[in-house]
Amino acid sequence: MRVFSFYERASRAFQDYPSLSKLIVLFTVSSGGLVAYSESKPYHGANSIDSSQIDSKKKRVLVLGTGWAGTSFLKNLDNSSYDVQVVSPRNYFAFTPLLPSVTCGTVEARSIVEPIRNIVKKKNMEIRFWEAECFKIDAQNKKVHCRTNQDTNLDGKEEFIVDYDYLVIAMGARSNTFNTPGVVENCHFLKEIEDAQRIRRTVIDCFERASLPNLSEEERKRIVHFVIVGGGPTGVEFAAELHDFVCEDLVKLYPAVKGLVKITLLEAGDHILNMFDKRITSFAEEKFQRDGIHVKTGSMVVKVSDKAISTKERGNEEISSIPYGMVVWSTGIGTRPVVMDFMKQINQTNRRALATDEWLRVEGCDSIYALGDCATINQRKVMEDISAIFSKADKDKSGTLTVKEFQEVIDDICERYPQVELYLKSKQMRNIVDLLKDSKGNDAKESIELDIEGFKSALSQVDSQMKNLPATAQVASQQGTYLARCFNRMEVCENNPEGPLRFRGTGRHRFRPFRYKHLGQFAPLGGEQTAAQLPGDWVSIGHSSQWLWYSVYASKQVSWRTRMLVISDWARRFVSGRDSSRI
Amino acid sequence: MRVFSFYERASRAFQDYPSLSKLIVLFTVSSGGLVAYSESKPYHGANSIDSSQIDSKKKRVLVLGTGWAGTSFLKNLDNSSYDVQVVSPRNYFAFTPLLPSVTCGTVEARSIVEPIRNIVKKKNMEIRFWEAECFKIDAQNKKVHCRTNQDTNLDGKEEFIVDYDYLVIAMGARSNTFNTPGVVENCHFLKEIEDAQRIRRTVIDCFERASLPNLSEEERKRIVHFVIVGGGPTGVEFAAELHDFVCEDLVKLYPAVKGLVKITLLEAGDHILNMFDKRITSFAEEKFQRDGIHVKTGSMVVKVSDKAISTKERGNEEISSIPYGMVVWSTGIGTRPVVMDFMKQINQTNRRALATDEWLRVEGCDSIYALGDCATINQRKVMEDISAIFSKADKDKSGTLTVKEFQEVIDDICERYPQVELYLKSKQMRNIVDLLKDSKGNDAKESIELDIEGFKSALSQVDSQMKNLPATAQVASQQGTYLARCFNRMEVCENNPEGPLRFRGTGRHRFRPFRYKHLGQFAPLGGEQTAAQLPGDWVSIGHSSQWLWYSVYASKQVSWRTRMLVISDWARRFVSGRDSSRI
Repeated sequence: MRVFSFYERASRAFQDYPSLSKLIVLFTVSSGGLVAYSESKPYHGANSIDSSQIDSKKKRVLVLGTGWAGTSFLKNLDNSSYDVQVVSPRNYFAFTPLLPSVTCGTVEARSIVEPIRNIVKKKNMEIRFWEAECFKIDAQNKKVHCRTNQDTNLDGKEEFIVDYDYLVIAMGARSNTFNTPGVVENCHFLKEIEDAQRIRRTVIDCFERASLPNLSEEERKRIVHFVIVGGGPTGVEFAAELHDFVCEDLVKLYPAVKGLVKITLLEAGDHILNMFDKRITSFAEEKFQRDGIHVKTGSMVVKVSDKAISTKERGNEEISSIPYGMVVWSTGIGTRPVVMDFMKQINQTNRRALATDEWLRVEGCDSIYALGDCATINQRKVMEDISAIFSKADKDKSGTLTVKEFQEVIDDICERYPQVELYLKSKQMRNIVDLLKDSKGNDAKESIELDIEGFKSALSQVDSQMKNLPATAQVASQQGTYLARCFNRMEVCENNPEGPLRFRGTGRHRFRPFRYKHLGQFAPLGGEQTAAQLPGDWVSIGHSSQWLWYSVYASKQVSWRTRMLVISDWARRFVSGRDSSRI
Repeated sequence: MRVFSFYERASRAFQDYPSLSKLIVLFTVSSGGLVAYSESKPYHGANSIDSSQIDSKKKRVLVLGTGWAGTSFLKNLDNSSYDVQVVSPRNYFAFTPLLPSVTCGTVEARSIVEPIRNIVKKKNMEIRFWEAECFKIDAQNKKVHCRTNQDTNLDGKEEFIVDYDYLVIAMGARSNTFNTPGVVENCHFLKEIEDAQRIRRTVIDCFERASLPNLSEEERKRIVHFVIVGGGPTGVEFAAELHDFVCEDLVKLYPAVKGLVKITLLEAGDHILNMFDKRITSFAEEKFQRDGIHVKTGSMVVKVSDKAISTKERGNEEISSIPYGMVVWSTGIGTRPVVMDFMKQINQTNRRALATDEWLRVEGCDSIYALGDCATINQRKVMEDISAIFSKADKDKSGTLTVKEFQEVIDDICERYPQVELYLKSKQMRNIVDLLKDSKGNDAKESIELDIEGFKSALSQVDSQMKNLPATAQVASQQGTYLARCFNRMEVCENNPEGPLRFRGTGRHRFRPFRYKHLGQFAPLGGEQTAAQLPGDWVSIGHSSQWLWYSVYASKQVSWRTRMLVISDWARRFVSGRDSSRI
C-alpha cells in the first residue's frame, strides 16, 4: 500500500513535467520493483544433489519447447547427472505477456527475447539445443522425430531422431479458430513474435493504404476499421495498445484518416475480461466506451472473408457483415497437431490437452512429463479414492474412524487433494474436523466416530471445488520450476520420499504434488491505466497499477539485458513516441 | 589532430576497464562530435523567398524516392509556394551507411529509420506522402503512374496517377548482378533494411543448421562458409562485422561449429577497397589476413548455384566451385527498370544512369530533375564550348585574347567547368593565367595575347580531369540539399541570376552549378578499427578513427530519436553483446 501512495504523490508532484517525471518515476519504480518482485518463486527448499552419488551413465532428458514452461524448467534444472537436449523451432525464449506491446511498437520485438543458448550457457551443466520442430513422439520406443524448420538445402538430411529416457513436453498450444471458415486465411493471431511483428506492419499498412489518393470515403473507413475477436486479456490489451498508438502517434502523421479510424472488440460472452473481478470488467467497459473503442458482446463470429467479418448475435439468427481492414483473432487456445497425434497414441482422444497427474506425468505413459499450455492436470477426485482413504485412516480396522485416527491422515489428504482445502475455505471452516462435525451435527466434540457412509457423505461435496488451471505464463513457469526441482531431487527423493501417503498403494509419494500459487493478474487498459487483480481479491485500477505493471514486468524479464532493453523502450516511447516505419 | 590525441590518451588511460571506459568515451566523443560535425553543409547562403510574392496557383512538385537524395531535398525545401507530393515504396528514410551493422545486430534496423511523415511534419509547409511505387514516368503529359506495393484487397484501385509541374527523380539504384546466373535466386543483397534483416536471420540460421545432429563434418563446414562477393566498402564492412559477430558472440554459443566457420571475400580487381588510398588497402588486407578472413582477389564469379559458387581466376580459364552456406552480393549498382524505361523514352539508352546537366536537370527534358544513385552528371567539356568561350571573352572582337580580357571571364569559366580547377590543382598552378603563360612559354608577363588556336591548345588537357561522382550517400545528400535551395530561390534567381555567364547563350545561368564537396570516407575493418580517408589525403587507421566514425555517424543521424537509438545500440553491444535470436 505504501508503495502506491508514493507513486501517487510522485505523479502528482511531477504532473507539470509529464514526460521527464514519468521517466524518473519509471526508473525509480523499476529498480524498486526489481528488489520487491525479482524472485518470488512459488516453490522452495529443493537443492541439487551431490553429483558424486550418481551412476556414470547419464539419463537423457529431452525437452520439447522453449516457452515459459520449457525455459523455466531449463533455468532451474541443476543436476549435472542428466544429459539434456532441447528441441524447439525457436532458438529463443519470448516474454509473451509483452506481445501486445510489440504489436504497436511500445516495446521492440528484440527486447523481449533471449536466446535459449544464452540462458543455458550460464548453467554449470551441458545442455544441447537443436533448432527444429518435433513432428512425432514415439513413446513406445522412447524416440522423438524432429525436422528443421528452415528452408534448407540439406539433401534430405532435415529429419533426425532423438532418444530419451525422460521426455518433457512443453510445446504450448496454437490459436483456436473453432473451425470458423476464413479465419486462418484472413486473420492475424497473437501468439508468436512474428505474429506481433506482422500485426505492427499491417497496422501501418492500413494507415498508408487508407491515405492513398482515389479512394472512396467508404473504402478508407473500411481499411482503418480494426476488429479484435475475443475479449480476453490479450484482445483487450491489444485493443487498448492500438487505441493509444492511433491517438498518441498515428493521427498526427496521417491527418487524412484522422476521423475514420474505428476499433471494434467482439466478444461472444456477456462481458469482456470475464475471468476478472466484476469491478475490473465494468471499469474496462466504461473506459473503452469513453475512448471510443466499440465493444460488442454476445457476438459470435461465423465467417471471415477477405474484406468483411460475419457475426451472429446471441438469440438472433440473423447474420450481419462488418467490413474491416484488419482482424486480430485471440479467442483461446487449441491443441497442436503433434500433441493431438500423441494423444491418439495414448488414448486421450476426447480432451483439449494432454492429461497429467498432479506430478505433471502424462497419464498412461512412462517417463513423460507435460506442462504449460499443452497439458492439463487431471486432479484426482476424493470420492474416487474414498474407500482407500477410509481404510488407510482406519488403522485399527474397526470399521469406524475416530477423530484421533483421522487427524493422523489429515495433512496427507490435504496435500494429495487440494480441493479439500479450497472447499473448507469456501465454507469458512478451519480444518477437516469441522467438516466431519458439521456432517454429524454440532453436538459432539471428541466423540465423533464415522463409518464409511458417514465419511462419504461428509466429503461428498469437496470435489465440486476442482478447477482447471488457466493457460497462463504464470502457471507454465511455476510448473517448469516445480518439475526442475523434482528432477534435481530425483535420487534423493527416491530414497527419502517427501510426498503425501499413497492412499491406494503403499509408502509415500516421491514428491509433493504440484501446487499453483496465484500471484495476481494484470489487464492493461491503455492511457497509462491498468487493472490489477492481486491475490486475496485485491483489485487496483488506474495509473498506480500501471506503475506496478511496469515494475513487475521489468523484474520478471529473463535477463538483465532484456530488462534494460524493455525499460529503455518504455523510456523511448515516453520521450519520442512509437515508430511508424513500415519495417 | 588534437581531437585524436585526446581519444588516444583517453583510450590508453581507460584500457584496464575496457567496456565501461568505452562507454564513457563513446558518449563524450559523440556529444563532441555532435557539435563538431552536426551541420557541415556543403552549400550556404540561400534563403526562402517571401511567400507573398508568389502566384496563388501553386506549382506541383513530385518527389520520387525517400532515400538520401529525396529526403535531403525534402528536409531543405522551405518554400510554401509549392504543392509537394512524395511517392516512395518505403514510408521511411533509412541511414544506409549503417546497414552492414544491422546485418549482425550491432545496430537494430529500427534505430536507423525515421518515418518520412515525421520528417516532413516538422516543416511549415504541407507535403503529402503516398506509399507506392512509381512504375511509369510519362514526361510528355507530365504524369507519373504509381502502384501501391502492398498485398492489398483494394478492388483494382491500387494504381493511381500523379500530375506534376516539376519532377524530382531520386529513386536510387538496384544491385547489379552483371547478369551472372543464379545470383538473384541464391544471393543476398545489401541495399534495403529488409535485406539486412534477412541476412541477420540467415547467419543465425546457418549456425543453427550447422549445429544439428546427423550432419557430416563437410556439410557443417559448407553451411558456415560465408562468401562475400565484392571488395568495396560495403562488402568489406560486412565481412568485418560478420567476423566480429562470430568471434565475439557466436562461438561462445555454438561451440560445436567453433572451428569450422570460414569467411571468404571475393574481389574481381587486384585489391579490396580500391577507391581508397593504398595505405588503407594494404592495412585492410593485412588485418583480414590476421583475422582469418580469406581475401581472394582477381576472382570473377561466373555462376551461383544453391550450394556452390563458381569462380574464374583472371588469366586462367579454369572454373573452380566453392561450397557455401550464404552468399552476400555487393558488387555495385545497376539501373532500376522504371528508370531504364524512362531513359528509353528520352533516348538515353546507352548509359547506366540518367544523365543530367550540372544543375541536376535531366538532359532533354523539361522540369525533370534527377539526383542520387539513379543519376549521373554529364559535365560539359571545355573543348566543346571553346569557340563560344573565346568569342564571349574577346569583347573587342579583335580575334585575340589579352590577359585583361581573359581575367574578366576566369571566374565564370571556373564555375561553369569545375575540371579547370582540378586540372590547375593537379599541375600545381595558381590560376588560369599561369596555364596560358605555360602554353606560351614562360617569357612574357602581361603581353600574352592568344588567338583561338593558342587558346584551344592551352586548354586542350583540362577535360582529362573530369570524373563521375561516386554513388554514395554523401553525394546524394549534397545533391538533395543543393536542389532544395535552388527550388527555394527559384523566383528570386529568375530575376537575379546568380550563376556563371552563359557562354553559348545570353545572360547568366540562374543558379550556380552543383559542386560536390568531399568530406572523407570511412571503411570500418572490425575489431574496433576503422580506416578513414579525409579530404587532403589525410589517412587515419585504427581505434582512434573508430571513435571518429562513431561520432560522425551519430551526428549525421536524421533525428535526435534515431541518434539516441543508435548510440544506445552501440552501448548495449559493448555491455551485453549482440543478440542471436532468430527473429
